[in-house]
Amino acid sequence: MSEANNAVVLVSGGLDSATALAIANDQGFDCYTMSFDYGQRHRFELAAARKIADACGCREHRIIRIDLAGIGGSALTTDTAVPKNRSNAEMEKGIPVTYVPARNTIFLSCALAWAEVVGASNIFIGVNAVDYSGYPDCRPEYIKAFEQMVNLATKAAVEGSIRIRIQAPLQYLSKSEIIRQGLALGVDYSLTHSCYDPSPDGLACGSCDSCRLRKKGFQEAGKKDPIPYQA
Amino acid sequence: MSEANNAVVLVSGGLDSATALAIANDQGFDCYTMSFDYGQRHRFELAAARKIADACGCREHRIIRIDLAGIGGSALTTDTAVPKNRSNAEMEKGIPVTYVPARNTIFLSCALAWAEVVGASNIFIGVNAVDYSGYPDCRPEYIKAFEQMVNLATKAAVEGSIRIRIQAPLQYLSKSEIIRQGLALGVDYSLTHSCYDPSPDGLACGSCDSCRLRKKGFQEAGKKDPIPYQA
Repeated sequence: MSEANNAVVLVSGGLDSATALAIANDQGFDCYTMSFDYGQRHRFELAAARKIADACGCREHRIIRIDLAGIGGSALTTDTAVPKNRSNAEMEKGIPVTYVPARNTIFLSCALAWAEVVGASNIFIGVNAVDYSGYPDCRPEYIKAFEQMVNLATKAAVEGSIRIRIQAPLQYLSKSEIIRQGLALGVDYSLTHSCYDPSPDGLACGSCDSCRLRKKGFQEAGKKDPIPYQA
Repeated sequence: MSEANNAVVLVSGGLDSATALAIANDQGFDCYTMSFDYGQRHRFELAAARKIADACGCREHRIIRIDLAGIGGSALTTDTAVPKNRSNAEMEKGIPVTYVPARNTIFLSCALAWAEVVGASNIFIGVNAVDYSGYPDCRPEYIKAFEQMVNLATKAAVEGSIRIRIQAPLQYLSKSEIIRQGLALGVDYSLTHSCYDPSPDGLACGSCDSCRLRKKGFQEAGKKDPIPYQA
């Protein structure tokens, strides 16, 4: 199979990117999965990312160390408390403290570097404009602008040999639609980790924004969430 | 002074970014300088970056660790030999092995993250489209596309409070013009390190592309290069 069939897939360990990986696989891409050790508060999502990549039979899984905690600005990399039990109205209002400055831009840039090295013409990211409307770097116009920049940034673009596509297949799906599509593709959601603030042994809290969106998604899809939650 | 006067300046330890920093300073910005420990072959440029930042009286200097060597693809992060004594014609032909995939995109993305945290509205980068025409991510159209993406990526952009500018003040200058401008602004070029392949004690080789461009620049500017070279 040619290199043009290679895709770099960003895998966080969460539900969305596990589904994006299954979609890339289903489209026939040879997947190179990438995760980041970026100073997040816990390591459970990195362990989940590796299990998900293994389960999907990806070509290679890389964990890139980058010191985003050294830049600061987010509850996910500092000691700021993660908000719990927020109402839907509160969650829809503004950008949450769990937003990590420029995170998707940095992650996509690293994916771009690896795409250049392995000759991949596609980069998959599991962003979603429906549930995460508060995150500027999940919006379709952002993804499109990133793709335009990418195609001026690379050796392959200058030489005219490869045009890179940023694929965000979950962009317009609700959480329940994502879950239904993932289940249809055989995603094992018991391997995924979504919680922003798990217990020391990795149990999901059930009350942070991420847990609440996940639980609501499974509920709306009429499916059982296979992960255990704290009582 | 307001945050809008803050600028993040990428400082590599080399001649170009030291000049870009002096220009940012001269324009009255409060400068936050950022360097990267990215698995480069030697540490001399990081030491130089810190000295340059200190000499310029910057607000804060940060070194971000990121494992680009883990991605590979460049003579600057792997064991591939650095080319020496290439003719001008050879240097102008194609993209050199010292190109690091997506490096400027990754560095600018991290600068963007810090810009969000400190409320900076300007990011300075010392790219140059004249001498480094072989690097896709030094071209004006790339910088412009990055700026467009940035202003869709950030919290401040979504909230409409800050528009971020990517400033590349050396873009259209030749090396000798950069040196003349830097000297006029008082840059101490003895602090800078340009060599891709220095001796174990940090002496510039004098024959890699970067040394050759530097030497030619000083020569054309009619100025003495203050750094020593290997015999």
